[in-house]
Amino acid sequence: MCELLGMNANKPVETGFSWRGFKHRGGVNGPHRDGFGVGFYRRDGYHDFHDVRASVESPLADLLGQDNIPALIMLGHLRQANEGSVEIRNTYPFTQAMKGRRWCYTMQGQLEEFEVLELSGRFTPLGTTDGEHVFCWLMDQLWQAECDDVSGVCELLRQCGDRLSRMGVFNMMLSDGRTLYTYCSKKMCWLTRRAPFGTVTSLDSGEHIDLEAHCDSDTVYTLLATTPLTSESDWQDMHPGEAMAFCNGERCDVSSPEAVLA
Amino acid sequence: MCELLGMNANKPVETGFSWRGFKHRGGVNGPHRDGFGVGFYRRDGYHDFHDVRASVESPLADLLGQDNIPALIMLGHLRQANEGSVEIRNTYPFTQAMKGRRWCYTMQGQLEEFEVLELSGRFTPLGTTDGEHVFCWLMDQLWQAECDDVSGVCELLRQCGDRLSRMGVFNMMLSDGRTLYTYCSKKMCWLTRRAPFGTVTSLDSGEHIDLEAHCDSDTVYTLLATTPLTSESDWQDMHPGEAMAFCNGERCDVSSPEAVLA
Repeated sequence: MCELLGMNANKPVETGFSWRGFKHRGGVNGPHRDGFGVGFYRRDGYHDFHDVRASVESPLADLLGQDNIPALIMLGHLRQANEGSVEIRNTYPFTQAMKGRRWCYTMQGQLEEFEVLELSGRFTPLGTTDGEHVFCWLMDQLWQAECDDVSGVCELLRQCGDRLSRMGVFNMMLSDGRTLYTYCSKKMCWLTRRAPFGTVTSLDSGEHIDLEAHCDSDTVYTLLATTPLTSESDWQDMHPGEAMAFCNGERCDVSSPEAVLA
Repeated sequence: MCELLGMNANKPVETGFSWRGFKHRGGVNGPHRDGFGVGFYRRDGYHDFHDVRASVESPLADLLGQDNIPALIMLGHLRQANEGSVEIRNTYPFTQAMKGRRWCYTMQGQLEEFEVLELSGRFTPLGTTDGEHVFCWLMDQLWQAECDDVSGVCELLRQCGDRLSRMGVFNMMLSDGRTLYTYCSKKMCWLTRRAPFGTVTSLDSGEHIDLEAHCDSDTVYTLLATTPLTSESDWQDMHPGEAMAFCNGERCDVSSPEAVLA
């Protein structure tokens, strides 16, 4: 399996501290040594980084910890390969462009007989993982459904997730650069931070940080991960079968008619 | 304008030396300070790197010089912004997926009234540069023509290039991961290396390298750039209006019936 990290903020947030802790799971605090990747939606666009080295041994992973890229949304992934060999083409996050937006996808899971999910050909995997196949299939579903509001996308992902979780383990994060969606079949937790921020400690690295010095008083952001990243007590577990959407730093009420794309 | 670097090899070649020299043009030996990017087609897949910092000041550019990623094809770009502000979304290389392959594009140029090039909607720019618009338009042409051989693609790019170069300056590189295509409206040169390799000197950094120690005896590779990268005497200028294709490390004879995709 793999490790997932997600972040959604209402204004650009420094990502270095979260990444520096998380990356320990790629070989020190976890067996996820088969490469890593991370995508950043910044105010000025999206870019991502992929490496087949273990994150604890990669100078690129170190640089991302130091560079502290300010992002609105981040999706990080540490891989423990099951389906698909250890290759750059099989390294998350995967992306596809749809209607002028770049969609970014990470997954923790393993799905039996994922090939039964028929692809239209509009979105085609470039590698050989189950995860990228599923991503292309999800993009097909979104394309066909012509969803363009957060509630609709979230509900569609919940329905797809229910089908996929019957095929195995399926925890995922997906973003179009405005909203961060997640589905939990087994394990995922989240935490929203807002002022007063205080000092927090990474459970992976032991590093402390005074968030007060790194956030504006009106910053609101949510972190998601396979298991809690920090010593804060208010990490909440998602329930199996739950889909959530995060916009502007916090959980969206997808039942609200206001849950439309910004 | 911008600076371009391209490489095509018959087997993976270390890219560090070429990159370390080239990146000096992004702020020391040239005014191209508005970000940079580089895409690598490796045996195990494609990945790329983008930064809005000048390459001479970016720790990411330094890392790419040290990391020495072994690649079959490389496309590097140092930007001097004209159309489109200095943002990650406007930083080359741009990529699009078509028929299960990732296509990667860099351009040096400036085109008047590029908006007259109508896009079908199949390939949509994510940023605001003339170059990405032109790239999407070229992808539309390739899609519609259903070219799947090197000669056909090269001839189509030559015809498109002739039209585009009447709108301004248009030097470009494009790859599908197997072949590196280039069109020259004004300035581009190239050099093929094969054994015996000898020692070469970067014109940008003054660094020497004994290529013999870094290449196998059967390695063949071609470098392309806006102006010569090294002191070697056999850099050849492309002629305005010329399109070329490079496969397996050397120039393809596109008039040959054997010029089909591997």
